[in-house]
Amino acid sequence: MEQIERIGVSLDKTLLSMFDNLIAKKGYQNRSEAIRDLIRQQLSAESISNPRTNAIAAVFLVYDHHSTKLMQKLTELQHSHLLQTISSLHIHLDRHNCMEIIVLRGRVDEINKTAENLLSLKGVKLGRVNLVPA
Amino acid sequence: MEQIERIGVSLDKTLLSMFDNLIAKKGYQNRSEAIRDLIRQQLSAESISNPRTNAIAAVFLVYDHHSTKLMQKLTELQHSHLLQTISSLHIHLDRHNCMEIIVLRGRVDEINKTAENLLSLKGVKLGRVNLVPA
Amino acid sequence: MEQIERIGVSLDKTLLSMFDNLIAKKGYQNRSEAIRDLIRQQLSAESISNPRTNAIAAVFLVYDHHSTKLMQKLTELQHSHLLQTISSLHIHLDRHNCMEIIVLRGRVDEINKTAENLLSLKGVKLGRVNLVPA
Amino acid sequence: MEQIERIGVSLDKTLLSMFDNLIAKKGYQNRSEAIRDLIRQQLSAESISNPRTNAIAAVFLVYDHHSTKLMQKLTELQHSHLLQTISSLHIHLDRHNCMEIIVLRGRVDEINKTAENLLSLKGVKLGRVNLVPA
Repeated sequence: MEQIERIGVSLDKTLLSMFDNLIAKKGYQNRSEAIRDLIRQQLSAESISNPRTNAIAAVFLVYDHHSTKLMQKLTELQHSHLLQTISSLHIHLDRHNCMEIIVLRGRVDEINKTAENLLSLKGVKLGRVNLVPA
Repeated sequence: MEQIERIGVSLDKTLLSMFDNLIAKKGYQNRSEAIRDLIRQQLSAESISNPRTNAIAAVFLVYDHHSTKLMQKLTELQHSHLLQTISSLHIHLDRHNCMEIIVLRGRVDEINKTAENLLSLKGVKLGRVNLVPA
Repeated sequence: MEQIERIGVSLDKTLLSMFDNLIAKKGYQNRSEAIRDLIRQQLSAESISNPRTNAIAAVFLVYDHHSTKLMQKLTELQHSHLLQTISSLHIHLDRHNCMEIIVLRGRVDEINKTAENLLSLKGVKLGRVNLVPA
Repeated sequence: MEQIERIGVSLDKTLLSMFDNLIAKKGYQNRSEAIRDLIRQQLSAESISNPRTNAIAAVFLVYDHHSTKLMQKLTELQHSHLLQTISSLHIHLDRHNCMEIIVLRGRVDEINKTAENLLSLKGVKLGRVNLVPA
């Protein structure tokens, strides 16, 4: 079980009251949870700005299902020795478009390179990479 | 079948040669595909900046699997009349952490409100929302 | 003089030690200052996401000094009744390019509209808008 | 005088008509200018993602003018041998707050380090760094 510490933070009454309003609106139960989230987001952003960090990525693609090259690239990706495909989710959006979410494990720079290669394929319309440090 | 138009674009020789280098690096086969991607990204960003746009979202969460409230909220979400849950993907990352990707359909403002409510739960460590216009 | 409050925040030992490392690297003298900065950034981002917020903006442009239309638009801007130009800074970057930083006061939506109009002028190469709630 | 090339771009009628609407809204006179802007933004983002790129930066700070340490740091900055301060602009926002915009020339990593050091000072409330490749 993780050990918990308690620290004191001093801040202006005005700033505190604005923060209390914001976190109530967002649905936080208490200030500690909201501040922990801010800290985690900053640590995560800092960590994945390093290209050599090991990360888990959810690559999110929207593409035309006539894009046959994407299928082939996704198959190649399963056999990559630099990235490990953990899982994927395929959704049929409409008559033309599919969404594919691929969860990968690997180094940030390798993940980004792979994502760029997928995004540049004809028929791939939009993409985004979500990274968390592993 | 979608009708294709061909337009002319004039640009400096230097700018064109820098663009050619960049798209080769990213793996594009031709300039048209690269320019179409830039246009689609701009249209998509513009469209989802409107809170009333109908969108498809992939909500991406990392959480401690001891967070029982999340399970309850995710179940409530399935019964929401404002958002339609299309699919979800669950991945066991390590002894403490899970990743959950939930694909939703609904209005941008409703999606963001729901995502904020999920993110503010105790035990939810990181989250990101990927939106595409529906 | 602003009244100071002191609140307690509980967090895991691991998270705290990662945060301490990060803020030391960034040059913070103490945790309170680093946490206040995170809170202010979140409040500021939240506030300026509302188009009707009153804000101060620093609009940052890089342009070719042969762009005569920009000069004309900047002059019109000085006489706008919706935005108040507070100050501006002009820098000669090289033989072709200038940087112009214009500080404006007005509503977020009006500022963004003006910035888009400036950015779309022929000869304006790059631009960015920095907003703070007024 | 820079040599101009003309390239052909093929795209769907629907995508083209959505793009035409967007650029009219933004105030563009023609498609070429809008596409050149998209290309320049992508090149610029790519270039400054490399920490060793030489860049010009506009560092934008909001601070409490009682923050005496900032004045001292800004003076030190003028004498830095790694960064060259080109110009600065100071604006008195209200009774408590000032805005300072400092234009620097140097390597992306040095600029970011300096900006983080300024932002971490007590009394500095918000900051942003705008970078353009030099």
